[in-house]
Amino acid sequence: MMPLMERVRVGLAGVGTVGSGAWKILRENAGEIRERLGFYLTVTHLSSRSIADKVLEGADGQVRRSADWRELVADPEVDLVAELMGGTTTAREVLEAAIRAGKPVVTANKELLAQAGAELVELAASHRVGFGMEASVAGGIPVHTVLREGICGDELEGLHGILNGTSNFILTRIEREGAAFGEVLAEAQRLGYAEADPTADIEGFDARSKLAILAGMAFGVRVEPEQIAREGITRIGPVDFEYARQLGATLRLLCSARRESAGLRMSVRPALVPQSNILASVQGSYNAIYLQGRHGQDTFYYGRGAGSEPTGVAVVSDLMRLARDLRSGRTAVPPFGYPHLRPASVLPAAESVAPRYLRFRVRDQVGIISSLASILAECGISVDAVLQVPGKKDDLPFVITVEPCSEASLGQALASMAELPFLVEPPLALPIERFGG
Amino acid sequence: MMPLMERVRVGLAGVGTVGSGAWKILRENAGEIRERLGFYLTVTHLSSRSIADKVLEGADGQVRRSADWRELVADPEVDLVAELMGGTTTAREVLEAAIRAGKPVVTANKELLAQAGAELVELAASHRVGFGMEASVAGGIPVHTVLREGICGDELEGLHGILNGTSNFILTRIEREGAAFGEVLAEAQRLGYAEADPTADIEGFDARSKLAILAGMAFGVRVEPEQIAREGITRIGPVDFEYARQLGATLRLLCSARRESAGLRMSVRPALVPQSNILASVQGSYNAIYLQGRHGQDTFYYGRGAGSEPTGVAVVSDLMRLARDLRSGRTAVPPFGYPHLRPASVLPAAESVAPRYLRFRVRDQVGIISSLASILAECGISVDAVLQVPGKKDDLPFVITVEPCSEASLGQALASMAELPFLVEPPLALPIERFGG
Repeated sequence: MMPLMERVRVGLAGVGTVGSGAWKILRENAGEIRERLGFYLTVTHLSSRSIADKVLEGADGQVRRSADWRELVADPEVDLVAELMGGTTTAREVLEAAIRAGKPVVTANKELLAQAGAELVELAASHRVGFGMEASVAGGIPVHTVLREGICGDELEGLHGILNGTSNFILTRIEREGAAFGEVLAEAQRLGYAEADPTADIEGFDARSKLAILAGMAFGVRVEPEQIAREGITRIGPVDFEYARQLGATLRLLCSARRESAGLRMSVRPALVPQSNILASVQGSYNAIYLQGRHGQDTFYYGRGAGSEPTGVAVVSDLMRLARDLRSGRTAVPPFGYPHLRPASVLPAAESVAPRYLRFRVRDQVGIISSLASILAECGISVDAVLQVPGKKDDLPFVITVEPCSEASLGQALASMAELPFLVEPPLALPIERFGG
Repeated sequence: MMPLMERVRVGLAGVGTVGSGAWKILRENAGEIRERLGFYLTVTHLSSRSIADKVLEGADGQVRRSADWRELVADPEVDLVAELMGGTTTAREVLEAAIRAGKPVVTANKELLAQAGAELVELAASHRVGFGMEASVAGGIPVHTVLREGICGDELEGLHGILNGTSNFILTRIEREGAAFGEVLAEAQRLGYAEADPTADIEGFDARSKLAILAGMAFGVRVEPEQIAREGITRIGPVDFEYARQLGATLRLLCSARRESAGLRMSVRPALVPQSNILASVQGSYNAIYLQGRHGQDTFYYGRGAGSEPTGVAVVSDLMRLARDLRSGRTAVPPFGYPHLRPASVLPAAESVAPRYLRFRVRDQVGIISSLASILAECGISVDAVLQVPGKKDDLPFVITVEPCSEASLGQALASMAELPFLVEPPLALPIERFGG
């Protein structure tokens, strides 16, 4: 057993948005953290390629500064290493070097974990050092802790999340203001909620990486982001919220993973969520996760998905846990599920069955419903309802909802519809979710 | 360091609602629990005063059964003890005996923890054994884990909760159906959501015990339930929901603890909650907790508050954590806050300032508003708005909302109003909450 240390010493590799948040919290809460832990948690080393330009309040002569992360990892006065640099190349080197040096690590790196999380966690386990990744997904929501310890006794059946703050911000603005997608995106870019190239957010790539990490933890399997069906939100407009409201629902970019007997059914895509489900209450840039347990039933977790300090809290909380483990000489225990990490058996999206919302824009003429209904019937799809709000005769939006059908038969129907002369644009098809209470 | 055990052996003291839930989960999830832990977690002993009458599926000859809990605690084949009996006398003896025997304990006992949690946790800490109490408050929501580890790096500023499923069930039924309090209570009793004597639930005593435990954990202090201002929901009627709706709000039995510079401000009472806050979405018998962090901002947690299996998940998750600690030879670490547990400095309710909702029932006549407004003015309270929905002339409900005022000046105003001849009943005064986004 290791001798008790007076304090546990932390190196922060990377002092950008997340790093400076963690720095601030470790400094401002130092007294309270000491009281909770029974010992001090002190930053002794900061590294950044541009360390010379970094101004960090309170970073005096006691804190070493390096432009090269290797000095930080090798520093005998660093017990724990937090990788807060982002990117996947150097960041991976930092984590591997720290683990090999026997130093527990914390990372906020979603891209890297989605790509190589399993290998990194296995490496940490084989070196018996702790690994913290609370900050990597839904920064302000302690969902990793919940999955790892809080409800680990349950067997999860479903995980549904709103994991991309930018697209939720955009969707809820469209919902409230009735503005068009492009307008709201431009506003989000002005406000700094969306990046100049918004693809990763609005096309669901970011959310997909996060779902891969969470589904891996929740179901104890290894999920590659590419295994998850994905669709963006760019075709959603105010009219869709209007129709959704008539159906007692709203629209969200929904990340879903469901356990079925043959494997996992996973997708990231806009979906109709019933107003009665608490996920429908998630507004603006907030994130949320809805879990369905076989025994514990439904639980729901909500908070900031990003931001310097919310993500910093996740980093600091992980550091505190690892520092306690280190100080008590505990053998590190890898996150649940990981020691037996096996590739996920992912069910094909084509077999996915759900009731659907089909929204058309047409040049109004006689026989439209009849043409569409007969194509649906040919594909074995039953019409549930037809909804129409007033609109222009040459660009009239209307909706057909259909009974549960597979992605495959839906695709066949959409393909047959492609040639119809009265369509202004291809139909928009969204699943209607019915989970939760 | 302790030698590695092939399996960790559990004794369940008490096999009522929670105990049988834990038993079922440990049995049905045995394979998955083994996979997650790397070793088996096996129930070897069950005790209950009425053990002879208990039928538990799968409890074969391998599982010892005792009518006397002392046999279970003393059993050398029991490594961990779960106290799931309820009550505060014998339950306390069980926990103390197990701790003194060096066996980590889990308890689901809210009453006992509200009364003597600090002493029990200190006893466990001094014997260096683990202590789990996730099941004691909001059974299905892993809020203890969140406070202990998930967001331990943050400094909390506020904790707000819906912690009593029965009163939330009653309030949301009144909200949806417009039925009177008495009718809905009777229905809740028929459905088994409310007990024959519903006092503990509808008068806020149960919620107050839970808030005492949570506030203790959140703020690292010792809170006695009697220190918390308390008011029940029996005077809430459909008309209050109607007025609340006009004010963009709804009504919930809200448990609140806020950190101010001089101490904690705490209360359990019905309050107006803005519809825009996610707490307003909590329906039926669900529980929820809303936390406000200085750095991590708002987070929210939601799930089943009670029930055999949701609470059983909490018990089993605690057992898994303690079993890992035991097996890795880790020195038990008491929950954050507890090692330095000091009595809470609780601010007097009389100084509590909030905008208020005042609902009157009057026999309509000339000069009512003027009489009420002049009393409010004498007490230094400013009227914000007057609302009125149609009603009977001899029992007319109407509402005055007032600007923030202290409990003390409000009390003075209510006392002066007591003598007014046109009042059918004393005014109902509720705080209007404005937190959250």
